[in-house]
This record gives sequence, structure tokens and C-alpha cells, in this order.
Amino acid sequence: MSPEDLEKYLYENIPLSKAMGISVVSLSSNKVTLKSLLQPNINHKKTAFGGSLNAVATLACWSLLYVNLLAKKQKYEIVITQSQIAFSKSVQADFEATSVMCSEKEWNRFMAALERKGKGRITLEAFIGQIDKPSVSFRGTFAALAVEPSIFPF
Amino acid sequence: MSPEDLEKYLYENIPLSKAMGISVVSLSSNKVTLKSLLQPNINHKKTAFGGSLNAVATLACWSLLYVNLLAKKQKYEIVITQSQIAFSKSVQADFEATSVMCSEKEWNRFMAALERKGKGRITLEAFIGQIDKPSVSFRGTFAALAVEPSIFPF
Repeated sequence: MSPEDLEKYLYENIPLSKAMGISVVSLSSNKVTLKSLLQPNINHKKTAFGGSLNAVATLACWSLLYVNLLAKKQKYEIVITQSQIAFSKSVQADFEATSVMCSEKEWNRFMAALERKGKGRITLEAFIGQIDKPSVSFRGTFAALAVEPSIFPF
Repeated sequence: MSPEDLEKYLYENIPLSKAMGISVVSLSSNKVTLKSLLQPNINHKKTAFGGSLNAVATLACWSLLYVNLLAKKQKYEIVITQSQIAFSKSVQADFEATSVMCSEKEWNRFMAALERKGKGRITLEAFIGQIDKPSVSFRGTFAALAVEPSIFPF
């Protein structure tokens, strides 16, 4: 899947991503970076609205999971079940949110649950700003559920 | 401040609120209810995007704090510092987010900090769906900081 493909998918399926001026900078199985314009996401202080920062970080994590599960034979639905976010510095310009892959151990545990039960949960992180001193730190837990006829008897 | 005044303020200062189809249903010093249309916030599952649910809950809490501090002589800036959200059920139609006032004890502690130091933090909660069995539960911490010439020496 190319950055253009993911961008098209987001615009078609989550139209707010277009209204927010989001574009896909890069994607791999280890990392997804989304860019967002400040202007459509501005707040009363002329900085980025916290709800927008959360939405872009959520999409970066969701996209990373989507890209990884797309490579599997089995199809999965992905939904967010909970998240936490911390805002350390205001964001005063166009910004990028980067999601990063969890540990291999965590991923293997998640894949084993998917293969055994057809469902599983995983927590992914994203940041806005510098990775070592982020303006925003996000942590979201996502549930994946097998869909379509599959090897699972349900 | 009337619901119309708050709605105008949100549209002018946080334009994404308009793009999301948010309107102000009611506001008081105890509770703010915002309504949002499903269509501009739809996701790949034809339910409300988690990032949108978070944004509406954030605005409901922010508005409740804004309305309460607007009544004070001193002017304050309000920013969100962190939040947690749990998604229990998908939201499949237009939805309302209601923020609810914290305990009087918590509020008094916050106001005492504002009066003593010109700054303080407070945590407010919001829900989407039924209060006793919410589809979405949100908890956000906000910082308020005194601005403009005031009784404070800074």
C-alpha cells in the first residue's frame, strides 16, 4: 500500500480527515507519519485544537495497524477501545503525527490471539513533535476482529 | 451566555466544530450538552470516528470550564493538558456529548489555586450516550491561567 492509497482510503472512509487537511507523509510496517495543516484545526489561541491533535494521532495508530493487518490473508475490522493523550507543548504550525510499532513480543502476542480466537487487542503509541521531547504523546488500544468467511468457525 | 453565543464562539474560534456539525443543545454552570451530526464524522464502519467523539467530548468539557470562568472578574486562558477516553459501544447516529461539573470540593480547590497563584488544574468528565451506561466516557484535565492586567503581580 502506498501513501497515496492510504490517503485515498482515509478521505473516502473517514471524510473528516480531508476536512482536517491530513495527508500521508510515509508509511511502512514499522511507522506511519501523517501531516496535518494548522489552519483547519486552529483554536481560540491560534494553536492546534487538542481534539484535532488527538484525531490525527488516532488515525496514525489506526493506519499502522491497518497496514500491518492488510498484509494478512484473513481480513480484520479495527476499532479503538480506549486512549490516553498528554499535551506538553502547544502546536503552533502544520504538524506531523507519527505512530510507532510496538515490540515484537507484543505484536506476536496479538497475532497469536488473532489466529487462535479471531480477535485481539493491541496498544500503539504516536507522538507529535520530536520523538525524544514530544509536544503530544498518545497511546491507543485497538481491537481487531476477524471478518468474512475464514478459517474460524464463527 | 446563551447556547447561541457559545455556538458562535466555537464556530469562530475552533472552526473544526462547524465542519463537524456541532451545535450547542444546552449550557449551564453544571452541565454543557453539545450535539454532533454523524455524517461529517463517519468512519469506515459507518459509525462515528473515535477522533470525532473525543473532539466533541473535549469541547463539551472545555465549554463547561469556559462558561464557569467567564463569570469571574479575572480572565483566564484554558488549555487541555491530558485526557483519557474509553469507547464501550459504537455510535451509529447523530450524538450528544454532555460534560458534568466536578464536585464542589474539587471546584473550590481549583478556584483557591486560581486566586492564590493565578493558575490551576481541574479534571472534568463527559459522556456520550446514557449517563449510566455510556457509549463513550471521557475525562480531561484542563489548566487555566490568569491573563490581562489583574490583581496578580505577573
